[in-house]
Amino acid sequence: MKTVITLLFLGFALAAAAAEPLPSWNDGPSKHAIIHYVDTVTKEGSKDFIPQKDRIAVFDNDGTLWSEQPVYFQVFFAMDRVKALAPQHPEWKLVQPFKAVLEGDIKKVMASGKEGLLKLIMVSHTGMSDEEFDDIVATWIKTAKHPTKKVRFTELVFQPMLELLRYLRANDFKTFIVSGGGIDFMRPWATEVYGIPSNRIIGSEIEVKYRDRKIIRIPKTRFIDDKEGKPVGIHYHIGKRPVAAFGNSDGDLDMMKYTEANRHYKTLQLYVHHTDAKREWAYDRKSPIGKLDKGLDYARDHNWTVVDMKKEWKVIYPFELKH
Amino acid sequence: MKTVITLLFLGFALAAAAAEPLPSWNDGPSKHAIIHYVDTVTKEGSKDFIPQKDRIAVFDNDGTLWSEQPVYFQVFFAMDRVKALAPQHPEWKLVQPFKAVLEGDIKKVMASGKEGLLKLIMVSHTGMSDEEFDDIVATWIKTAKHPTKKVRFTELVFQPMLELLRYLRANDFKTFIVSGGGIDFMRPWATEVYGIPSNRIIGSEIEVKYRDRKIIRIPKTRFIDDKEGKPVGIHYHIGKRPVAAFGNSDGDLDMMKYTEANRHYKTLQLYVHHTDAKREWAYDRKSPIGKLDKGLDYARDHNWTVVDMKKEWKVIYPFELKH
Repeated sequence: MKTVITLLFLGFALAAAAAEPLPSWNDGPSKHAIIHYVDTVTKEGSKDFIPQKDRIAVFDNDGTLWSEQPVYFQVFFAMDRVKALAPQHPEWKLVQPFKAVLEGDIKKVMASGKEGLLKLIMVSHTGMSDEEFDDIVATWIKTAKHPTKKVRFTELVFQPMLELLRYLRANDFKTFIVSGGGIDFMRPWATEVYGIPSNRIIGSEIEVKYRDRKIIRIPKTRFIDDKEGKPVGIHYHIGKRPVAAFGNSDGDLDMMKYTEANRHYKTLQLYVHHTDAKREWAYDRKSPIGKLDKGLDYARDHNWTVVDMKKEWKVIYPFELKH
Repeated sequence: MKTVITLLFLGFALAAAAAEPLPSWNDGPSKHAIIHYVDTVTKEGSKDFIPQKDRIAVFDNDGTLWSEQPVYFQVFFAMDRVKALAPQHPEWKLVQPFKAVLEGDIKKVMASGKEGLLKLIMVSHTGMSDEEFDDIVATWIKTAKHPTKKVRFTELVFQPMLELLRYLRANDFKTFIVSGGGIDFMRPWATEVYGIPSNRIIGSEIEVKYRDRKIIRIPKTRFIDDKEGKPVGIHYHIGKRPVAAFGNSDGDLDMMKYTEANRHYKTLQLYVHHTDAKREWAYDRKSPIGKLDKGLDYARDHNWTVVDMKKEWKVIYPFELKH
């Protein structure tokens, strides 16, 4: 009898666990919208049922799965890399944007604009094999820390979004990253951190050449995975339209509209709105990083889900769970 | 007691089924090499153990997973499409290679060379949305028949290779197609035929643009996934070096050498050698389609596995099983 009771208890406990997905999400409109959507499209026989092979969910990375302030974390990587290479380039002390990097002046670095950032990306991300670059990123991500949060960058991923990724996969969705950031900057760590394999990571690309059995990184942009580039990247890498799209900025709007226009299935679009100046950062329409302006209007006009981080997330980062 | 015996019997039957993979392969050097490799790298604790996440297997398509004679099947698609579009292009009756297509002269079509074939590909594969193109291919593949074999093209896949794909997946390998053929020509049917999802299909690419929530196919080549392009395509789509590579021509040699140079793991390289003039086709060093010359020498010098189709395959095509 004791065994039976134990088993019954275990059964209830498991049922309770299954009935409580997304534990770091407060009961609110976003959590309800997500669960309602997943329940609806995974219910066999329902008119909105989506077969497993078509359950494609796409996630932006910067600002959607992890923080992106005061600048995209990849810029910190590029700056650290420039500092490491500086002894071989004495001329950098005199030339912008390298001078600003060596002086640690982030504002001046950002003021160098797209052209300046591209120069930093090229000297820091090319000229080696893909495997050498993997090793450089893997070493950096294990050691480098955020300037104000004082923790490693991978500790600044969003706990509620990790739960969302897991919840979708538990319901047989395939989760993909579709980031404006560099595809090869994410691959060395994103599998472990997000549970997403390298072949499901899409991002901006550097040209490569095959030589002597190696892939060599060439200082040339191949593909920018931002704005209208996101649906294009999805086409090349996934080859079918997603049913769910998650973003946080105007750069994700085309990907989300493309998803919304799925001709076969009910879809879900969700914006993470950065409203928590205390625990994270608060920014939207006027931010130079992760600007959310047109997207916010569009989302409100089209009944998309907009997550109010401050109100809807119990915790932001995984390390808060330990307290 | 009867139940116990039944269970024991069931156990033996399951064990026997598990012990007999690749039923359409004769006991021969290739079957032994494949099974020995898979047993070795999936045995936990073995020095050659490969973790699941790195079990990446890449397959060429034309000549490796299905036949490719007298010309790549995609050329038949392009020709049929040109015939369908001809009423809107009266000028094609006078201009090569369109004239040859309309007269059904495959030899003259092939004699038009790369430039001629590219013209046929562009008029037949571009100018529509990706979803419209999907529908066109899906309709064609269900109805069109091979000129001499008189069966649908998807009936000309290799039964032993279907078993190999299944065997590898049963051992937690991820199987990818890395084809010189068009990525979007394969995607509409390869998932059902090979069990490979669209995001694990890599091939040559046409440029696309995002417009009005659609992906529009532009008459411009973006990427040729052949020879040194194959490792490059693997880098962009998979982001890590494979451990097993399967091909049938010199066009696969770079992909196979790239796999062989894996810095972490024991690897497997296998060439399908077309030696069966009766059941399929026999060709290698002198063939204009699927030429296997340098690759054959390299494979023999490096102890790669070379499948003698005539000797090692019990059946070639799935329909032979039904007799």
